[in-house]
Amino acid sequence: MPPTISAHTAAPYSRLPGTNVRLFEAKAQQGLTFADIGKALNRDEVWVAAAFYAQAKFSDEDLAKLSKLLKINQEVLSSEIGGHWWPDRGAVTEFPPKDPVIYRLYEGIMVYGQPIKALIHEKFGDGIMSMINCKVHVEKIADPAGDRVLLTFNGKFLPYLQW
Amino acid sequence: MPPTISAHTAAPYSRLPGTNVRLFEAKAQQGLTFADIGKALNRDEVWVAAAFYAQAKFSDEDLAKLSKLLKINQEVLSSEIGGHWWPDRGAVTEFPPKDPVIYRLYEGIMVYGQPIKALIHEKFGDGIMSMINCKVHVEKIADPAGDRVLLTFNGKFLPYLQW
Amino acid sequence: MPPTISAHTAAPYSRLPGTNVRLFEAKAQQGLTFADIGKALNRDEVWVAAAFYAQAKFSDEDLAKLSKLLKINQEVLSSEIGGHWWPDRGAVTEFPPKDPVIYRLYEGIMVYGQPIKALIHEKFGDGIMSMINCKVHVEKIADPAGDRVLLTFNGKFLPYLQW
Amino acid sequence: MPPTISAHTAAPYSRLPGTNVRLFEAKAQQGLTFADIGKALNRDEVWVAAAFYAQAKFSDEDLAKLSKLLKINQEVLSSEIGGHWWPDRGAVTEFPPKDPVIYRLYEGIMVYGQPIKALIHEKFGDGIMSMINCKVHVEKIADPAGDRVLLTFNGKFLPYLQW
Amino acid sequence: MPPTISAHTAAPYSRLPGTNVRLFEAKAQQGLTFADIGKALNRDEVWVAAAFYAQAKFSDEDLAKLSKLLKINQEVLSSEIGGHWWPDRGAVTEFPPKDPVIYRLYEGIMVYGQPIKALIHEKFGDGIMSMINCKVHVEKIADPAGDRVLLTFNGKFLPYLQW
Amino acid sequence: MPPTISAHTAAPYSRLPGTNVRLFEAKAQQGLTFADIGKALNRDEVWVAAAFYAQAKFSDEDLAKLSKLLKINQEVLSSEIGGHWWPDRGAVTEFPPKDPVIYRLYEGIMVYGQPIKALIHEKFGDGIMSMINCKVHVEKIADPAGDRVLLTFNGKFLPYLQW
Amino acid sequence: MPPTISAHTAAPYSRLPGTNVRLFEAKAQQGLTFADIGKALNRDEVWVAAAFYAQAKFSDEDLAKLSKLLKINQEVLSSEIGGHWWPDRGAVTEFPPKDPVIYRLYEGIMVYGQPIKALIHEKFGDGIMSMINCKVHVEKIADPAGDRVLLTFNGKFLPYLQW
Amino acid sequence: MPPTISAHTAAPYSRLPGTNVRLFEAKAQQGLTFADIGKALNRDEVWVAAAFYAQAKFSDEDLAKLSKLLKINQEVLSSEIGGHWWPDRGAVTEFPPKDPVIYRLYEGIMVYGQPIKALIHEKFGDGIMSMINCKVHVEKIADPAGDRVLLTFNGKFLPYLQW
Amino acid sequence: MPPTISAHTAAPYSRLPGTNVRLFEAKAQQGLTFADIGKALNRDEVWVAAAFYAQAKFSDEDLAKLSKLLKINQEVLSSEIGGHWWPDRGAVTEFPPKDPVIYRLYEGIMVYGQPIKALIHEKFGDGIMSMINCKVHVEKIADPAGDRVLLTFNGKFLPYLQW
Amino acid sequence: MPPTISAHTAAPYSRLPGTNVRLFEAKAQQGLTFADIGKALNRDEVWVAAAFYAQAKFSDEDLAKLSKLLKINQEVLSSEIGGHWWPDRGAVTEFPPKDPVIYRLYEGIMVYGQPIKALIHEKFGDGIMSMINCKVHVEKIADPAGDRVLLTFNGKFLPYLQW
Repeated sequence: MPPTISAHTAAPYSRLPGTNVRLFEAKAQQGLTFADIGKALNRDEVWVAAAFYAQAKFSDEDLAKLSKLLKINQEVLSSEIGGHWWPDRGAVTEFPPKDPVIYRLYEGIMVYGQPIKALIHEKFGDGIMSMINCKVHVEKIADPAGDRVLLTFNGKFLPYLQW
Repeated sequence: MPPTISAHTAAPYSRLPGTNVRLFEAKAQQGLTFADIGKALNRDEVWVAAAFYAQAKFSDEDLAKLSKLLKINQEVLSSEIGGHWWPDRGAVTEFPPKDPVIYRLYEGIMVYGQPIKALIHEKFGDGIMSMINCKVHVEKIADPAGDRVLLTFNGKFLPYLQW
Repeated sequence: MPPTISAHTAAPYSRLPGTNVRLFEAKAQQGLTFADIGKALNRDEVWVAAAFYAQAKFSDEDLAKLSKLLKINQEVLSSEIGGHWWPDRGAVTEFPPKDPVIYRLYEGIMVYGQPIKALIHEKFGDGIMSMINCKVHVEKIADPAGDRVLLTFNGKFLPYLQW
Repeated sequence: MPPTISAHTAAPYSRLPGTNVRLFEAKAQQGLTFADIGKALNRDEVWVAAAFYAQAKFSDEDLAKLSKLLKINQEVLSSEIGGHWWPDRGAVTEFPPKDPVIYRLYEGIMVYGQPIKALIHEKFGDGIMSMINCKVHVEKIADPAGDRVLLTFNGKFLPYLQW
Repeated sequence: MPPTISAHTAAPYSRLPGTNVRLFEAKAQQGLTFADIGKALNRDEVWVAAAFYAQAKFSDEDLAKLSKLLKINQEVLSSEIGGHWWPDRGAVTEFPPKDPVIYRLYEGIMVYGQPIKALIHEKFGDGIMSMINCKVHVEKIADPAGDRVLLTFNGKFLPYLQW
Repeated sequence: MPPTISAHTAAPYSRLPGTNVRLFEAKAQQGLTFADIGKALNRDEVWVAAAFYAQAKFSDEDLAKLSKLLKINQEVLSSEIGGHWWPDRGAVTEFPPKDPVIYRLYEGIMVYGQPIKALIHEKFGDGIMSMINCKVHVEKIADPAGDRVLLTFNGKFLPYLQW
Repeated sequence: MPPTISAHTAAPYSRLPGTNVRLFEAKAQQGLTFADIGKALNRDEVWVAAAFYAQAKFSDEDLAKLSKLLKINQEVLSSEIGGHWWPDRGAVTEFPPKDPVIYRLYEGIMVYGQPIKALIHEKFGDGIMSMINCKVHVEKIADPAGDRVLLTFNGKFLPYLQW
Repeated sequence: MPPTISAHTAAPYSRLPGTNVRLFEAKAQQGLTFADIGKALNRDEVWVAAAFYAQAKFSDEDLAKLSKLLKINQEVLSSEIGGHWWPDRGAVTEFPPKDPVIYRLYEGIMVYGQPIKALIHEKFGDGIMSMINCKVHVEKIADPAGDRVLLTFNGKFLPYLQW
Repeated sequence: MPPTISAHTAAPYSRLPGTNVRLFEAKAQQGLTFADIGKALNRDEVWVAAAFYAQAKFSDEDLAKLSKLLKINQEVLSSEIGGHWWPDRGAVTEFPPKDPVIYRLYEGIMVYGQPIKALIHEKFGDGIMSMINCKVHVEKIADPAGDRVLLTFNGKFLPYLQW
Repeated sequence: MPPTISAHTAAPYSRLPGTNVRLFEAKAQQGLTFADIGKALNRDEVWVAAAFYAQAKFSDEDLAKLSKLLKINQEVLSSEIGGHWWPDRGAVTEFPPKDPVIYRLYEGIMVYGQPIKALIHEKFGDGIMSMINCKVHVEKIADPAGDRVLLTFNGKFLPYLQW
């Protein structure tokens, strides 16, 4: 009996388009990691995971590759999350988040948000770090005292326009 | 007329202990950056900024060095944010944040939180990335297409205990 | 396999009447833009998009034209969103918005709302800019430094009545 | 008896740094409009109003000009909102806004936000309209049926990065 | 094809008992106004609309008349919203309301609520205007400068008991 | 000892500009009703009460009359709530309101809001009742079964623009 | 056609287990009051109503009696709300309540909660009135000036433990 | 050193007019209970406590008696909470309440609110129990198993008007 | 007729994956306690209950044992909550909780949270008690004055990193 | 210069009566732990900390001992938090808590609340664990793998009354 997301009436799957739930099922059935899929799509694993959670948009070429890799009819994918579909970003989790994994990231912003803002101002001036032109990476760092997660946001600085 | 935080009736200064507001004033009056102060305290600039915003706790040794550097009476510092004082972390900003700099970080968690959780599970198993045993860095990356902010969270993985 | 909104259990489609979801499907299947439909209906593309999202009301004549253009039985359209139906405006998105596209507009009001209010008072006196008698336009401005979005609200000034 | 902001214990003035309240008082005492000040600073009146509401940052040169224009000691301005001060944007109004002038703008986003998002996607692809690299204008359009407010947002399109 | 409320998965119909949705469909199919129905039931049109929205309770006699007028089997009506059913008032709209028509009424209370309270105290003493013993009317007033809505609440004054 | 608003650290006075609190004190000291003041200003008592609660703007002529009537120096009034001051409407009460007098009005909108919207659509078409071009009245109706409050909103109908 | 709760997609029935909705239907079909059922179960009518709304737990003996009284198969009742089921108290109404009947009770706590707390402290000391060991009664008091509701909470006083 | 409410910067005293805080201080200094004061004023102790918490309005005669009993200058009381002052009911506690004494009452409404509503409908028909024409009592019932609090609401039934 | 969770459209079951609801049904049908299941799985009963509520993750070995114990096909369990599934912790209850059992725990944190924090600082220094590396136990303590619940959290202390 | 709570304009001290802030200052000046004070008062250290945070009520005897131990005039303590003062429990922290120490406890209830409720029902039946008749302890458990916090709630089981 292959893996299913019987859980799709429960969060977070209940907040995704049906097609995206099927992507998760197929990934489990094929025993693939996001890194495996990223390699096949020539994309970083975080970006791929984001697209699985409907937080990014696959191109037609991505869908063609996914169809082969995950053994889902390409027409099904295209008819549902093809060119006419756009992400409704941010909808997959309620905020403040309750799940401890996501809450810790949120707490990181609550505690270190003002210090980060102060350093951005000090180093760059009046502006922001773009979350649109931004790459996110998750790495595993082996450490004898306990492995570590290295989470990286690499975003373009955007200065405030004066007019 | 030296720099003041006349703004201390306005956010975020209105949410800080009075001593911390004086730290900000003294830093401006001395013309120091957080990196300068970090060097003197042998700490990272993000940690120093966090402590300025009352999000971390200075040791007695830190306060002694700060006193010299910022020309504030050490006894004043100790009597107010010495050993008997503890941070009330997270109180310096309302959430969801309205300031665009901090909001972008928050948006990063809203959009990429589930993907990051999925990758932590895939790479490490059932657990979290610690925000207590975690180092945060902000770096400026020169880029001809526009400088970039490199924001890093380096946190220990903590597996869920089963009992 | 024609485009579908399989996503209609997910936001924002899950908040629309069923007929409006079918309008989106038919638009995708016909490969039409809002501008194309606007031309056929003699309406601006923003108004057309608003009506697709159930934020404006099509006249009977509009429905007749839509029926032809989108190849949906006119009686179906009329029986569902004809004269007896009225928009429940504002229900299609939760606020504060999480999607970055809509959030940026919201941020625009948070940051520039008081300045805009001040200028309306300064130029017009005590009153408001009507959002009922208001035309909204979205234009693409080519720019070598990156194309720009020109978003325009053109609303009647309404002075406060004194009685 | 010159104009004062006796109201500075009431919103929105109670949310501003004290210096900014003094700017409003001086503007009233000098009988200047934002357009007058904008001309002197070589900036648009909306930007000037935004800086008065602590939503933008005056340069040192701006402060020097303001000092002369508004007859406020330049050192006072610099000591308080000079180089060491940064805007805490978005803090000047509670959301959802209650004031009818600002609420109408907010309602505009609630009603037309999804249509605007759809048109940005249709015309530009997957990305956002920047609210950082954005110019805002307010114009008065004379109209025999009642004068109209023309509110314009002119923001750079930022495409989502894929990595 | 007769009018339907296919929209009944969308607000406000999605918050009503199924029978009430059928009342709206039947009203549209018979081409009746609330005034027409009010005349048949010997009730004001606002009260009738309130009962359609499940905000008031039809008597058995009302249901018998409605059955004839709307051509719905009386037993169906009685079995569902007969004597054993009671209104769950206030549930049909989320507050603060987003729809502009209802929001304007809400804004009226936000802006004029304290003044109305002050006048009730001044004219009647310590007490309230009953919303239980209250008649509500909506009238159209023709006006060359634009028709006007005359909305009236006529409620009994209830003095606070002292004991 | 003349009446004071010692209560001005408590709601609703704590949300008003200081000048407006003084208006209330002076009104009590002079023993005037809003109707008395309305007569002197040639305005309705509800409008006057709204202006006392900072929900409407007195003209210069109003302030001159008020100064005489309430025995407050006119320059004081002008310097504080003269031409340079604008109402921040809606800020005087938290919503949902807790005070029973204002809550009943709010409940009226919760219960009868959808019916009123339905009747406006039925009688006028797609549009709203203006709360800007609107007159509000409060009348006392003697009734042997208990006096009644007659509350009237008389607002211009504004049809939705199509463009 | 027997009474049904066709309304079970609407509040408050939509928040109950399916079995409880069937209890309400059966009660209506048998034409019984809560007092009738209370007599048969040897319980107060308020307790019975609480159990109908899934706010209390029927014993096996209660279910046997209910089965006979309401003509519902006892095994059905036991299989669904028997020994393995426990109340999720408080879930049947959103708070603050919107329905006027429940709101008035809530307003009673908002207005008289502090006075009641003060009197409990004055008469009993530091502790609370138990809502677990508490009997609630609703009585009808005939009164020529209008019948009265006598609502009684009889709860054990629990002193705060010091340790 | 006589009792003071040094606590008046903390809740609930921080939400009261200053005069009411002085009433509490005087009551403690005189060593009086609410019952004592009630006897002197010929009012129930709950009503008196409500007036102390600014939830009811003392008459001029009440203030005269209070002045003698509590040894506060009558003119002070009249100038502050005399005829020109009106209660802002409900403002003294945030809801949901956090204090366990008041929370238990709130929980009583959350758990038993729907059952109470059902019984009011069953016994009286469509209407509410008035919280305006309502007497509240708190009694101590001695009980060997632990004393009990008997809390009573005695409110007039108000039937919904049909018009 | 075996026990069912017919209640699964009601909270808290409506927030769980379907498989977890079936686990609860099977547990009831087999007449097992969490302690029984804990013994079979060699885990504490609280951990087992947490996993039933989808707040912890069963290993493959756990699922194999559960399958035998509860007579559910192992493949069904694995396909649904096997290795590809991860807990979405915290989603099973709305906060603040309304159910009195859970509310009391929450109240315990509201009342004793700051004291517990103070003692952790005093005894351990700047850091937290881990809720990831934490064992929770519930014990019944017989007591002639009434049985007592002994609830224990045993969590590792994590000191704040300085960097 | 002795320790002060200069922080008393910042949370959590800003939410306490002034006297309680002075207790904290005196405790720091005397260099005492909560355990030291507990020993002197013959109370557990958690209870003492709770009373410092205004979450419990000192007896007159406690105040006398505190006065000596902390060298604060006893009359000052009695006049402010003596017999006429009562705790306003739960007011010292906003919920959901942002501080990581308190948040972890809150997360413990979010994740393990339903399991704890299930076990209380399984072991005790329909009722709650009292948070009024409850002792809380914090212990430090030395552990070579890292010291552990042992947090214990020992509360009386209260069965639901049926009446």
